[in-house]
Amino acid sequence: MKILAIDTSNRPLSVAVLDDSMVLAAITVTVHQKHAEYLLPEIERLLEMADLKPTDLDRVVVAAGPGSYTGIRIAVTTAKTLASTLDIELVAVSSLATLAANVPVEGALVAPLFDARNQNVFAGLYRIKDGVPTAVIADAHTNITHFLEAVTEYAEPVWFLGDASHFADLINTTVSAATPKISPWLNLPQVATIGLLGQEMTPVTDVDRFVPNYLRLTQAEAEWQAKNPNNKKDNDSYVEKI
Amino acid sequence: MKILAIDTSNRPLSVAVLDDSMVLAAITVTVHQKHAEYLLPEIERLLEMADLKPTDLDRVVVAAGPGSYTGIRIAVTTAKTLASTLDIELVAVSSLATLAANVPVEGALVAPLFDARNQNVFAGLYRIKDGVPTAVIADAHTNITHFLEAVTEYAEPVWFLGDASHFADLINTTVSAATPKISPWLNLPQVATIGLLGQEMTPVTDVDRFVPNYLRLTQAEAEWQAKNPNNKKDNDSYVEKI
Repeated sequence: MKILAIDTSNRPLSVAVLDDSMVLAAITVTVHQKHAEYLLPEIERLLEMADLKPTDLDRVVVAAGPGSYTGIRIAVTTAKTLASTLDIELVAVSSLATLAANVPVEGALVAPLFDARNQNVFAGLYRIKDGVPTAVIADAHTNITHFLEAVTEYAEPVWFLGDASHFADLINTTVSAATPKISPWLNLPQVATIGLLGQEMTPVTDVDRFVPNYLRLTQAEAEWQAKNPNNKKDNDSYVEKI
Repeated sequence: MKILAIDTSNRPLSVAVLDDSMVLAAITVTVHQKHAEYLLPEIERLLEMADLKPTDLDRVVVAAGPGSYTGIRIAVTTAKTLASTLDIELVAVSSLATLAANVPVEGALVAPLFDARNQNVFAGLYRIKDGVPTAVIADAHTNITHFLEAVTEYAEPVWFLGDASHFADLINTTVSAATPKISPWLNLPQVATIGLLGQEMTPVTDVDRFVPNYLRLTQAEAEWQAKNPNNKKDNDSYVEKI
């Protein structure tokens, strides 16, 4: 199975081309956020280096959030367009699960988190089972203190990944069990693992209606809901109504 | 410290640009071996993506073998030329140690190996200490059975990486302690880790005289030594004499 995996949900732009579990070509750029400008050219170039045409692809796997609104939109829109145009499968992977998959320790408890400012994080807790991260606490946009309290209840060593260094003091004082010291490269999404995770997952059934997993409202949505309280529970309707 | 890390010692071509422990840009291509054709353009492109000029670099880190003769020569020659031209530091890292660094488990015993045909391997045994692989059995060109016997004496779980799947049956029957099941992406050199490892290491003192670590003679060298038995122990003299 020929897979294109893309992730621009956070600072890094990552693209990988895989043939089953074999990584043919992969690139990661963390230095700027010209995701919209670089994504398509990089996809074209990597496919060319992998001696593949777009029509050779069987599946597109995308890290669908949480993360930066703009970044997620760029990746998801590109993935949907490719899947729809080429009539191939689309698979969405949690951007946090992707990071958790960097820990190759069976049974390990992993807490990937992204700094969402003001002491808030996008975070989830995962258990590595057969090499694949399985959600123990679902991805959420939450206060870091609340998240750490929930994690502490497991009374196990936890691998904190992502922007964990932003909250190092808090993690060290809150989480009692020893947390493994990790190599810095574990904090980088390995887009190859996105491809590997996405290989096993069920594709999206309706590509055109697939939406990213922002995990929090944009300011525009929040304002719209404040003005339209009757639609509060109908998150999907915002774009259509507007 | 701005670091350029390159590895073409085996099938993958990998280039990374780092600023201290931060990976700015990294690419890995495994699909063909046009290393000589792709290496310099990729270095130029990644530096450009990282908004750096070659003269901004402080250090070149190269995976100096073991591996393919041609691949090692391409990477080492490119690294030496850059270090010499730019008057910056050159650091050589074992291609096997780089693979071992993919295992982020403190205290783990890791056996990276490359298939060298006819039941021979390039292999070493490493212990992860403070996140860095430290040699327990030095890198060598050896028979797989001999290597596994030496590894078995440690009576510990061992992480086999690289071409371990080529010898899966032999490993399973020889090594008694349970060997961790690993994610396929661990088998791919992460050139970012080459940069991170090389950051801590002492640079080569004489860039111009630095030679790769082939760990076995080329056929030409072996034939020359057979005809010139008096020079048998003087491995370095072959190129100069010829």
